[in-house]
Amino acid sequence: MDGHPSPRSHNHHPPPEMDGSFNYDIESMDGGGGAWRGASTGRNGSSEALLRYDDDGSGGPREPLLRKRTKNTTSQIAIVGANVCPIESLDYEIVENDLFKQDWRSRKKKQIFQYIVLKWALVLLIGMLTGIVGFFNNLAVENIAGFKLLLTNDLMLKHRYFTAFLAYGGCNLVLAATAAAICAYIAPAAAGSGIPEVKAYLNGVDAYSILAPSTLFVKIFGSILGVSAGFVLGKEGPMVHTGACIANLLGQGGSRKYHLTCNWLRYFKNDRDRRDLITCGSAAGVAAAFRAPVGGVLFALEEAASWWRSALLWRTFFTTAVVAVVLRALIELCRSGKCGLFGQGGLIMFDLSSTIPTYTAQDLVAIIVLGIIGGVFGGLFNFLLDRILRAYSIINERGPPFKILLTMAISIITSACSYGLPWLAPCTPCPVDAVEECPSIGRSGNFKNFQCPPGYYNGLASLFFNTNDDAIRNLFSSGTEKEFHMSTLFVFFTAIYCLGLVTYGIAVPSGLFIPVILAGATYGRIVGTLLGPISDLDPGLFALLGAASFLGGTMRMTVSVCVILLELTNDLHMLPLVMLVLLISKTIADCFNKGVYDQIVVMKGLPFMEAHAEPYMRHLVAGDVVSGPLISFSGVEKVGNIVYALRITGHNGFPVVDEPPVSESPELVGLVLRSHLLVLLKGKTFMKDKVKTSGSFVLRRFGAFDYAKAGSGKGLKIEDLDFTDEELEMYVDLHPITNTSPYTVVETMSLAKAAVLFRALGLRHLLVVPKTPGRPPIVGILTRHDFMPEHIHGLFPNLGKSH
Amino acid sequence: MDGHPSPRSHNHHPPPEMDGSFNYDIESMDGGGGAWRGASTGRNGSSEALLRYDDDGSGGPREPLLRKRTKNTTSQIAIVGANVCPIESLDYEIVENDLFKQDWRSRKKKQIFQYIVLKWALVLLIGMLTGIVGFFNNLAVENIAGFKLLLTNDLMLKHRYFTAFLAYGGCNLVLAATAAAICAYIAPAAAGSGIPEVKAYLNGVDAYSILAPSTLFVKIFGSILGVSAGFVLGKEGPMVHTGACIANLLGQGGSRKYHLTCNWLRYFKNDRDRRDLITCGSAAGVAAAFRAPVGGVLFALEEAASWWRSALLWRTFFTTAVVAVVLRALIELCRSGKCGLFGQGGLIMFDLSSTIPTYTAQDLVAIIVLGIIGGVFGGLFNFLLDRILRAYSIINERGPPFKILLTMAISIITSACSYGLPWLAPCTPCPVDAVEECPSIGRSGNFKNFQCPPGYYNGLASLFFNTNDDAIRNLFSSGTEKEFHMSTLFVFFTAIYCLGLVTYGIAVPSGLFIPVILAGATYGRIVGTLLGPISDLDPGLFALLGAASFLGGTMRMTVSVCVILLELTNDLHMLPLVMLVLLISKTIADCFNKGVYDQIVVMKGLPFMEAHAEPYMRHLVAGDVVSGPLISFSGVEKVGNIVYALRITGHNGFPVVDEPPVSESPELVGLVLRSHLLVLLKGKTFMKDKVKTSGSFVLRRFGAFDYAKAGSGKGLKIEDLDFTDEELEMYVDLHPITNTSPYTVVETMSLAKAAVLFRALGLRHLLVVPKTPGRPPIVGILTRHDFMPEHIHGLFPNLGKSH
Repeated sequence: MDGHPSPRSHNHHPPPEMDGSFNYDIESMDGGGGAWRGASTGRNGSSEALLRYDDDGSGGPREPLLRKRTKNTTSQIAIVGANVCPIESLDYEIVENDLFKQDWRSRKKKQIFQYIVLKWALVLLIGMLTGIVGFFNNLAVENIAGFKLLLTNDLMLKHRYFTAFLAYGGCNLVLAATAAAICAYIAPAAAGSGIPEVKAYLNGVDAYSILAPSTLFVKIFGSILGVSAGFVLGKEGPMVHTGACIANLLGQGGSRKYHLTCNWLRYFKNDRDRRDLITCGSAAGVAAAFRAPVGGVLFALEEAASWWRSALLWRTFFTTAVVAVVLRALIELCRSGKCGLFGQGGLIMFDLSSTIPTYTAQDLVAIIVLGIIGGVFGGLFNFLLDRILRAYSIINERGPPFKILLTMAISIITSACSYGLPWLAPCTPCPVDAVEECPSIGRSGNFKNFQCPPGYYNGLASLFFNTNDDAIRNLFSSGTEKEFHMSTLFVFFTAIYCLGLVTYGIAVPSGLFIPVILAGATYGRIVGTLLGPISDLDPGLFALLGAASFLGGTMRMTVSVCVILLELTNDLHMLPLVMLVLLISKTIADCFNKGVYDQIVVMKGLPFMEAHAEPYMRHLVAGDVVSGPLISFSGVEKVGNIVYALRITGHNGFPVVDEPPVSESPELVGLVLRSHLLVLLKGKTFMKDKVKTSGSFVLRRFGAFDYAKAGSGKGLKIEDLDFTDEELEMYVDLHPITNTSPYTVVETMSLAKAAVLFRALGLRHLLVVPKTPGRPPIVGILTRHDFMPEHIHGLFPNLGKSH
Repeated sequence: MDGHPSPRSHNHHPPPEMDGSFNYDIESMDGGGGAWRGASTGRNGSSEALLRYDDDGSGGPREPLLRKRTKNTTSQIAIVGANVCPIESLDYEIVENDLFKQDWRSRKKKQIFQYIVLKWALVLLIGMLTGIVGFFNNLAVENIAGFKLLLTNDLMLKHRYFTAFLAYGGCNLVLAATAAAICAYIAPAAAGSGIPEVKAYLNGVDAYSILAPSTLFVKIFGSILGVSAGFVLGKEGPMVHTGACIANLLGQGGSRKYHLTCNWLRYFKNDRDRRDLITCGSAAGVAAAFRAPVGGVLFALEEAASWWRSALLWRTFFTTAVVAVVLRALIELCRSGKCGLFGQGGLIMFDLSSTIPTYTAQDLVAIIVLGIIGGVFGGLFNFLLDRILRAYSIINERGPPFKILLTMAISIITSACSYGLPWLAPCTPCPVDAVEECPSIGRSGNFKNFQCPPGYYNGLASLFFNTNDDAIRNLFSSGTEKEFHMSTLFVFFTAIYCLGLVTYGIAVPSGLFIPVILAGATYGRIVGTLLGPISDLDPGLFALLGAASFLGGTMRMTVSVCVILLELTNDLHMLPLVMLVLLISKTIADCFNKGVYDQIVVMKGLPFMEAHAEPYMRHLVAGDVVSGPLISFSGVEKVGNIVYALRITGHNGFPVVDEPPVSESPELVGLVLRSHLLVLLKGKTFMKDKVKTSGSFVLRRFGAFDYAKAGSGKGLKIEDLDFTDEELEMYVDLHPITNTSPYTVVETMSLAKAAVLFRALGLRHLLVVPKTPGRPPIVGILTRHDFMPEHIHGLFPNLGKSH
């Protein structure tokens, strides 16, 4: 019954989920529920409290003035619109507000218990799977990239430099082309970081395929191939997306397309639970990528989620803790050497805690300088990235082959840089007091030999000719003031900054964290070396601060970046310095443009609702922006009209209005959803005459989960339904599936306040009603798109645009 | 002009804050703003964009159907209700959404810049002050309690045991009586933890004196005296309250009563900024109490704040980081020994990181046992505490002398326990391999000599005859399996559990964290000792897990407790175990009752709005619970009617309705606030006739900050105003001060959904409008109190009460 409900009959034994548990997910994520008294009173024996209420209610001791008691006179089963899946809306309340003691019958208790246990189990599973995937990702990258580097190293030791380049560049090209091919042909949505998409999804944008199983597959393997191919990109953003995809796959009961489905998970077929799980998944992704459980929670809180409850905080934290445990166990397992080339270099973890920073007032100067540089470079990075992405989109739109060609071009450039540029660097004699071996043996290490004679190392090769994780570790290494020449650092910074910019838009899963940390750490070291005379901080700490400043300048995240960096470097003493640097760089960069993820959200055209209203909205009222034509249905409507309306429009919600034969005057009944209409139409319980029914046929005919929200792009479609001409002339009663408590605003309500209402309650439809009587009872419906700046500026071109 | 506006005339040079910056704080915390087009268009030169909009708007290319363009035809200065203080609502948007580029004139830019700088400065100041107060608190406690303990120790060494008891008990009694006296006479609100009050305040309950300067004074000194007096109570809860008070004092521009006021801070005279600052203050309190910056942020997020934005996250984190820096610097300062008896024992910080836990599957059994015990004990603790507090409130209500007597009685009991019970314990020979000195010299240490001969120690005295911080440190100490006898631990646990229960309700600032951690750590050690044969975990780690389980069982906080414990013990490896224990104990305790702070909120009668609606609310509609009589005003109302209405009711908001002479049919204009009415009445701009004015007199007569929200209990009162009979017969135009965009619901809206709306938007008044035409345009006003279970169950006694 996943999204393909079949007409069933439950006359004799309505299943437990029948009593009022229709699942109304589009309306709101409030969990509040609406009026479902009818549903309860209509059932055997459980209505005594409510009947008594009906008796007492009208004659209470405190009869207010000016008040006509307006009882909830909705139809007995007009329960769909009320968001009252007992499972969904009871949710956390159970644990937290002892609803067990209320009149829930034992059957429901069992359901609730099932639900809670299932949700915790799911969260556990998300954490475990994300942890395993994160570890597997690392393991694969370390082995593939390690093999590639060792092969090239071998050839170079034999002085076959050109063959070495061919081997190196060839490996990179093959890996890159494979990644681009699976990405372009199987799941184009898997390209890029994925964080903007997850952010938009959690804001309420259900873009098809963002979280599909194919995206998950490509995200995992594309990311491994892309990172192994030596691109200047990270696995962190893709890990966030991977975690979200895993959560979505588990939450929506597996994938029907690939026959991985589970009926038990029908409880989670609603927006709220899905968002909860996906929030947990994205936190788990960060935790897996950085081994930072607290950082993951704060990332989900600060960057990913649009709505937040404290119950969600706890669940997220549980997920990231599971990730931490899984990662720890797997690393422990690999310590015995069974994991091929996976060694210390595995999960990035740069332990700086050995250097105790004793910072003085002079160091503050250095920090302010770093913050300013970070802000300027960050703003510039976002500006250039926007331009480059727009240019790339022209190429990428021409089809998969072009995507692959672009990726291959960038791969060749990257290979040329990382193999070619080190030749510019002079050979440096190994320091006599080096703690590590010099030159390094094997594929990682601080002192790459490259083309140099024994006893010498090539500083630029130590950074370029390495995995990105190792390069970061080298930059963060402490007590190595003299290791890198200034020229080396300058060349590396320029190359990484440019490569990072041109790499992001290619058709490969690509995170921005690593390029940004690399570039930031490099200029941090440069500044540290330049300011050496006045500051005593270690260049490794300067690299950390530089990375923080560039992260602040591009991503504009604050607390989460701070905590992630602290967890990465295991150094709580740096907290105030990191915060100061972030504060400065974010403030400066905010003068230029938005954060990089927000920019990408806008560029992708995802209708993201900000938590606050734009100032120009104060000049408008709600009635100004409703766009027509408005299509509304009568309470009892002709099937033909409904089918026609569904065919010609793409609207997902329609107002229902009772006209004089049914009511005294035209009266707004509520809102009906396309998906529910389709289920009703598929049931074909039509009537010959235009009369209001008791609505009981809906209860008999459909189970609660027939109305559950289907996975993205999986619901019924109007094209799938066929009707005879006779059926089209018949009538259907919409009252039973109408949400009779939609949120409304008066047409003269300030648009800014309407926007705040819409966003705070997570609505998808907001009904605008007239202020004065004597007009049709509904003026229009506001959806997310009506609040978008483009829409409003289209209607009012001279409204003082913000740019 | 703080709350006492005087009539002024600004005909020639309206101050910068005049342009639409009325500050409407009661309506909502949305920051969204309403319709203030009128305000802008009415001003010189700045209206060209808006005039153009007026020209283009009606003839745009996309004229929707079914749409009568309803322009925002509110009066030119009908701006009060719109929450449009440009300062307030621009707020973070400035930094984050480059509104600098919009048409804000330079004067406003300057204001906005001032505002941002001021807010950061305030946050910095809050952090610094809270850090200093937290340190001072510790310093004072260590010195006073240390002096007391040394004195007693001296007497005991001379075997003058009875004199020692007198000295010990006498010191305690004097300290306790002083604490109770200042608390009972100066600020009764300072008694108890303060966390429930702060929580309620941040939920929107403005209870008078919760955050007053006198409360702050008593909280600081009462807490020092109370902790020094040897009570089983902590300084953590009071520190949270202290931080909140400091934030409130700074935010509301100092205290006028004590002549500590600052006009610059008028920007922060509104609900939203005040709540932001107080959230930062409470986080700073936790950070100062536990030296846990991240824990402080998560505490504010999970327990304190009701509304959350990511900008607030960053600000909170900044505050706690400042606290951490200040504490670090002060402790560094004290390391040289200039701080009297303040030594290692200062800020609790129990370093467990030396013991690396390698936990096995068997240990999980122990953890599950601990979790269950924690849940049961926690639920029982909350139940008993509720009963005891109710009993105490009968005593406390009889007046300050009784409060002091009760406190003295508890002090004597506590002294008797902590001096008397150790006599029951046997003298134990010092372990030969002890790392520390045995018996301990001085006032702290693991091995208290007490009455024992040299070479022996009294385990019970090591716990009882100590400050609470030292007792916790002894319990958490690792590698000391045999230090405490089982009987010792049992006696200590029983005593602490009971003393903790009876101590909380006395008239002294008293936190619950320390008693709960003490009791939890004790039974943790007991369980650890009992399960020694099957578990290899150190008893110190068991103590930590026990403390976590009891914290989870009483306070029901999860993530914040987890992170606080991790930051306290500096041991990230324990994370999964602590989480598991918390999960189990919270789940079990939730079966019995609510968290202790929620319980106290309910008991104090604070109308706290939960984030979710109660299930029984789904059976009702909004119209069912509005309580009357409803008093509404005409758009132009007789002064006498307003004065009468303000005198006979305590309502804070009144609907304004235009009647047929002014409009075609009775029409709802909006909502007017008592505080704004009072300002208007004080201005005495009355008219002889009942005509609608242009409203410009309000702009001429009042500055924006005349309408700013006054500090708690400081606003104008109707009793302060006098009117002649002639004035009472005149009219006043309410349109200029009416909020024309109030949030409304239809009377048939499900009460549950109305409650969600009310809570999510942080409203104080929600207008209920009729569904059918032909009736008065307003049915009633819902306030916070109408959603309270007591109110609803009073109206509908048989509605299936939850207990």
